[in-house]
Amino acid sequence: MVKVAIQGEAGSYHEVVAKQFFGDELESIYCSDFETVFENTYQKESDYGVIAIENSIVGSLLDNYDLLLRYDLRIRGERYLRISHSLLVPQGVKARDVQEVLSHPIALRQCKSFLKRYGRKWRILETEDTAGSCKIIQEEGRPFSAAIASAHAAEPYGMEILFEGIETNKRNYTRFFIISPKVKFEENVNKTSIVFTAADKPGSLGRVFQLFAEEKINVSKIESRPILGAEWQYYFYLDYEEGLEHPASKRVLEKIHEFVDFVRVLGSYRKGVLTDTSGNFL
Amino acid sequence: MVKVAIQGEAGSYHEVVAKQFFGDELESIYCSDFETVFENTYQKESDYGVIAIENSIVGSLLDNYDLLLRYDLRIRGERYLRISHSLLVPQGVKARDVQEVLSHPIALRQCKSFLKRYGRKWRILETEDTAGSCKIIQEEGRPFSAAIASAHAAEPYGMEILFEGIETNKRNYTRFFIISPKVKFEENVNKTSIVFTAADKPGSLGRVFQLFAEEKINVSKIESRPILGAEWQYYFYLDYEEGLEHPASKRVLEKIHEFVDFVRVLGSYRKGVLTDTSGNFL
Repeated sequence: MVKVAIQGEAGSYHEVVAKQFFGDELESIYCSDFETVFENTYQKESDYGVIAIENSIVGSLLDNYDLLLRYDLRIRGERYLRISHSLLVPQGVKARDVQEVLSHPIALRQCKSFLKRYGRKWRILETEDTAGSCKIIQEEGRPFSAAIASAHAAEPYGMEILFEGIETNKRNYTRFFIISPKVKFEENVNKTSIVFTAADKPGSLGRVFQLFAEEKINVSKIESRPILGAEWQYYFYLDYEEGLEHPASKRVLEKIHEFVDFVRVLGSYRKGVLTDTSGNFL
Repeated sequence: MVKVAIQGEAGSYHEVVAKQFFGDELESIYCSDFETVFENTYQKESDYGVIAIENSIVGSLLDNYDLLLRYDLRIRGERYLRISHSLLVPQGVKARDVQEVLSHPIALRQCKSFLKRYGRKWRILETEDTAGSCKIIQEEGRPFSAAIASAHAAEPYGMEILFEGIETNKRNYTRFFIISPKVKFEENVNKTSIVFTAADKPGSLGRVFQLFAEEKINVSKIESRPILGAEWQYYFYLDYEEGLEHPASKRVLEKIHEFVDFVRVLGSYRKGVLTDTSGNFL
């Protein structure tokens, strides 16, 4: 078995990703928040952790970028999931019986049109977690409550799927990282994530980008976060499409020291595939 | 008089900035949220708007970046303010009488050490706004309530300053933009903000940075936001230290079209000064 720390409860989107990535070997360790996922993985209570890093609608999960810097872990894999929400109810409950709906505020917002159409009289209760809402309904025995969550959250909590695909915007994709304690070798990888601070001279950031351009390496993402105590300077998180051990990549990371005060490799991994919650490739 | 739309109530940090920037000519138009500030300025109900854009501890206000793109307004000025919180109470109330404290969740978090020391028995009530908390206390006549806000919020609501400088981290700075409807000429400016999307070919983003490096123009900030409907592509918000009409700046903005699909100048303005809430330069 592979122990994997995931954010959320059984049936959460993080567990959907973990199941697809690790298959039948998966043993989920449910964590109440992202920091616990990092802590648990860092303490080697789990072999891996799974964290969302950005969503195509709401953007980056900035706290998770901060945690990637704080914990000396490695990004080992990447995965993209199309998020599709369902309305789940306790067995036998009909739509007309529903009086309230529980879910994470973002999921609730993503199903606004559906709620306008079917749930105008429902009480809206915000919770910490999508699958966690099913757990609350089961544990507290709320017979007239529904939850917005992944269809995968139905089975663990003995619930029924009343509606599927209730999200307004179908182009709702989340990118996940699989993290683990440090490893020596990364094989078969074609994407790398680093974090750095630009040296305090004009044009440093531009020169860093120039290095990648000269080696024809594509930079797929750049994200900035404030450095505490050094106002208006930033940690830059950069993803590029090449493996860490590739000669071009090595040249960049050698020359980069001239233009940065600090650089760390967060991980090198295979570019992730995109699937739906049933595991079909998209 | 100059009509200025600001986020928050009388005595808010936004009004402190507006007062310092516009002096005695200021006529504040209080807006409940940032979108209202943009809308109000766009509709020319105000001559200017004032918005926070980033904080040295919590990072960028990403929603405001989205609004800068959505509304075709111009950044006209920049200002940096050292945030310093005070504990305000209705006249005559002593520390030992206080039973609850109201403020914005971020301000409450920033005064954690103070609250641990003095307010362990106080009820914590989260509100939408720092100065707005004073308004609630005044309007609802809560005799045993305190608010965490700028010292400037005392006078408008007839309150007293019980403690000053209660923030834990003294290096708490917020950067503000002064926005207005479009203008034709920008004079005496030395900083420019643009937003662009990189062309869909490898290395585009690097080439954009290269342009600035070649002209020895310093890029002071880059921020990325997701493009809805175009997954894993981003709007890049970039600040550089040169005026829009400077020849080097013009050359960059001419050549940039080769590497971007879209570019818009958000504004060109004088690099902002840093002051404390009393208006002293730091």
